[in-house]
Amino acid sequence: MVTETKKPIQFYFDFISPFGYFASLRIDELARRYGREVEWNSMLLGVSVMKVMGLPPIIDLPLKGPYIVRDAKRYARRHGVSFERESAMPGARPLEAGRAYAWAKTVDPIRAKRLAAGLFESYFVNCSDIGDSLLVEQCISRAGLSVDAYRHQRWQGVPKALLEKNVEASLDNGVFGSPFFIVDGEPFFGLEKMPDLEDWLKTGGW
Amino acid sequence: MVTETKKPIQFYFDFISPFGYFASLRIDELARRYGREVEWNSMLLGVSVMKVMGLPPIIDLPLKGPYIVRDAKRYARRHGVSFERESAMPGARPLEAGRAYAWAKTVDPIRAKRLAAGLFESYFVNCSDIGDSLLVEQCISRAGLSVDAYRHQRWQGVPKALLEKNVEASLDNGVFGSPFFIVDGEPFFGLEKMPDLEDWLKTGGW
Repeated sequence: MVTETKKPIQFYFDFISPFGYFASLRIDELARRYGREVEWNSMLLGVSVMKVMGLPPIIDLPLKGPYIVRDAKRYARRHGVSFERESAMPGARPLEAGRAYAWAKTVDPIRAKRLAAGLFESYFVNCSDIGDSLLVEQCISRAGLSVDAYRHQRWQGVPKALLEKNVEASLDNGVFGSPFFIVDGEPFFGLEKMPDLEDWLKTGGW
Repeated sequence: MVTETKKPIQFYFDFISPFGYFASLRIDELARRYGREVEWNSMLLGVSVMKVMGLPPIIDLPLKGPYIVRDAKRYARRHGVSFERESAMPGARPLEAGRAYAWAKTVDPIRAKRLAAGLFESYFVNCSDIGDSLLVEQCISRAGLSVDAYRHQRWQGVPKALLEKNVEASLDNGVFGSPFFIVDGEPFFGLEKMPDLEDWLKTGGW
């Protein structure tokens, strides 16, 4: 008997995306119910939304900007998720976090997820600046990864190059927002698509 | 004993929006389960998205445009909804349809919904041009409304003025897309928000 190995679900996120953060709290448990692993991939909204699609940050849009802020807060209320960051707060600097995660993933994917969770928490619960390399190093250390190893790689530009490669790959896969999921080649954009993603796994696709 | 009268749910749509069409097939039944009426309001994506937010039509965006086309088709497959219109088809002209609906609503809201359903069907199932006034008049007639009365009003510019007023009102209410719902002042954007809207009605809000 040949056991079919199911491919992992691809989960894409930007560390400064509230809905990416919310999705990160649910996706592994959802996938587990259908015997699936999840591969977490950092991407950059500043590249997909602003450079490739040529759009301003959603938060700056009239009408839609205020709606998104309200929507994130009520989601957190409804689902009991810690979410303290005000949208007006400055400091949306995803590069250090994204690079550190891209590096960590090549070292130890399990600890890398722990790092990602720590970075999301730092940003959205503790309202820390994840653009600060010292804060990122603290998160690396708490995730059980070596800060010395990271510093060495960072000095050689490795994390930067890895994130650039990951962002390129996300664009090649049609990823344009956060969160974004790909299940066996099928794309699902947005937190609200998670029930459809689950339905897809349950039924085998439609 | 005073019986509390619940306010109708506000449902906003553009006749050329596939997701507005899909929502129109579900919203009245959803609302009925919670003892609610639904008021249908035509709006214009060309005003909210293009003029107010300054964005190009979503269909023209790299990455997101192709995703939206795929998403609409798979929704129709999954839910057994008739949907024949190809996105590449020319003729997205919502004005005649929107104006006729805005007029019909002032005459007979029940028949106006029948007109809206007929216009959606003409556009998305029969692939007709709802910018054609003769086609719109056929839909008016089939909905049990008077074509003569419509022609008279149209000659005086009434439907045009009514749609303009409705579009202004939609912007005043923060509406920026299709479908869009407002329940007791609470906004829900997008077809995928219908489960959240239902949860809001069920629980009394969060």
